[in-house]
Amino acid sequence: MSRVDHVTLDETLRQALTQGLAATELWSLLLSVLEQRAAQRTPAMVRQQWESDRFVQPCAVNQRILNELDSHLLAAAADFEALELSPLAPLASCSSVALTSQNRIVSTARGTEVVSDPTNVLALECAKRLREAPGATIKLTTSHRCVRAQAIPKRPGFAAHFRMFCLASAAHERKDHGFTTEALIDHIRTHIAALDRLEQHGYRFPDRTLRLLCTPERLHLATRIAEAIPEMPATLAPLEHKYYDGLRFMLDAGTPDGNAIPLIDGGAFDWLRKLTDNQRMVYIASGMGSQLAALLFRRVAQIA
Amino acid sequence: MSRVDHVTLDETLRQALTQGLAATELWSLLLSVLEQRAAQRTPAMVRQQWESDRFVQPCAVNQRILNELDSHLLAAAADFEALELSPLAPLASCSSVALTSQNRIVSTARGTEVVSDPTNVLALECAKRLREAPGATIKLTTSHRCVRAQAIPKRPGFAAHFRMFCLASAAHERKDHGFTTEALIDHIRTHIAALDRLEQHGYRFPDRTLRLLCTPERLHLATRIAEAIPEMPATLAPLEHKYYDGLRFMLDAGTPDGNAIPLIDGGAFDWLRKLTDNQRMVYIASGMGSQLAALLFRRVAQIA
Repeated sequence: MSRVDHVTLDETLRQALTQGLAATELWSLLLSVLEQRAAQRTPAMVRQQWESDRFVQPCAVNQRILNELDSHLLAAAADFEALELSPLAPLASCSSVALTSQNRIVSTARGTEVVSDPTNVLALECAKRLREAPGATIKLTTSHRCVRAQAIPKRPGFAAHFRMFCLASAAHERKDHGFTTEALIDHIRTHIAALDRLEQHGYRFPDRTLRLLCTPERLHLATRIAEAIPEMPATLAPLEHKYYDGLRFMLDAGTPDGNAIPLIDGGAFDWLRKLTDNQRMVYIASGMGSQLAALLFRRVAQIA
Repeated sequence: MSRVDHVTLDETLRQALTQGLAATELWSLLLSVLEQRAAQRTPAMVRQQWESDRFVQPCAVNQRILNELDSHLLAAAADFEALELSPLAPLASCSSVALTSQNRIVSTARGTEVVSDPTNVLALECAKRLREAPGATIKLTTSHRCVRAQAIPKRPGFAAHFRMFCLASAAHERKDHGFTTEALIDHIRTHIAALDRLEQHGYRFPDRTLRLLCTPERLHLATRIAEAIPEMPATLAPLEHKYYDGLRFMLDAGTPDGNAIPLIDGGAFDWLRKLTDNQRMVYIASGMGSQLAALLFRRVAQIA
């Protein structure tokens, strides 16, 4: 085939796959393509991929440690409903509402994607429930093993898949941004309580620092949140990251060798407004890198 | 476009995707195709899929119940190393060694598949370790949320994704099929101990029955296994399912309304022989439908 033909076929092919085929036709085509691609693979090829592909290698932390860790985290979040998510979410669960690229996510051949951030998925459940009962206050938690396709930071503990512990709160906004501030205070306190609880079970989280990042318009809310958590004085700083809806918090802890590790990250998001088409719906979400906690902050190897 | 052109393009397209493109070119093409498909999706489309697609809906069982259930199962399997798997496995992890169709599995657009059966994945880890240390005896356990794409049985508790509790044992065969029989006895006893332990924590597994299925050549091994577990008399029956390597066991329990539920299933498999190219390597694996146990056999709702 000449170079021109090759290019033309490429373009025709790409055009059919991205636009020409109806979505259901695409999934049906990919199903049979991947069935045939799978049929071409030998046991030796599968074994070689097992040993070299970061997406498939097992977690470096023993599952008993993760199971016990989750039990403490879920106990610390006792007034959040514990939802167990599917490994899969609708295609574009993140990229349709958040400033993120689909290239950071593993998409499947069936119109879904592997969960990369449970807070995006919990937002879908909140949207469903708030459409059914707009006056409700939703509080959800989950521990979930996420997969991320982006390049991995060159730091110990980072992997292509990892457990994350998440909180999500959603409701119609109240007077004086009452729900936004209340939910953020609730999340920060719950994460602090989780760290305290883990410290009673073999973990150490020294040198904790709390940062509140905000846009100028939301500075009064950040101040109100800081005042409500006197037990842990917060540093206030300008928020520049457009990913958040004007408010973000970060809770770091120090490792024995003196590094500050960003362990907990949360904030306000506009996702629920996009998902419900209701401008008054507030979504507060946060996550702890629980697998990172197990790798870097566990003092005693209690479980073999 | 005329019908003929359409058909020709279809065939050219299919040919390129299944054969013409190198695997890396295919993954690269699919990456950009799915990025563009994702970009075409609105928040409303994502929300609608969340409410209708069985692959993405959350589990019907509260995560606190599953976390506690896993803690008991992992404790019952105390002498198995607890490995936490990735949500993803190499493409063809199951179909390259087992009698199963890729259509029952959700493949990704990056040369992987969503784990559908952790026993296939644990076999890969056993192959890796036995190639490094052929004299070793490997014992692994994991609790994992699997995704299955096949049609779901019309029975309560069955879903497109579910937690499964697995055991895997692997080693070079010993005299008189010593490893095969020993490992199967170990698995059966561990599962019985797991059920007993759960009965101390709010579960009931009445009317348990153990069946040993075997080919005529392996009847003497099945008999030896049955004799080693006098506390639970087994029924012996012919094995017709080619999925197993001559030996299979099934442990059922009865629900309050009198149905026998196949809860535990295991046996010998030839997968490790294929993965290691060593005809003397034995692989014994078994799984409990732990999510099914939580749904059908829990007497007391101890955790809200």
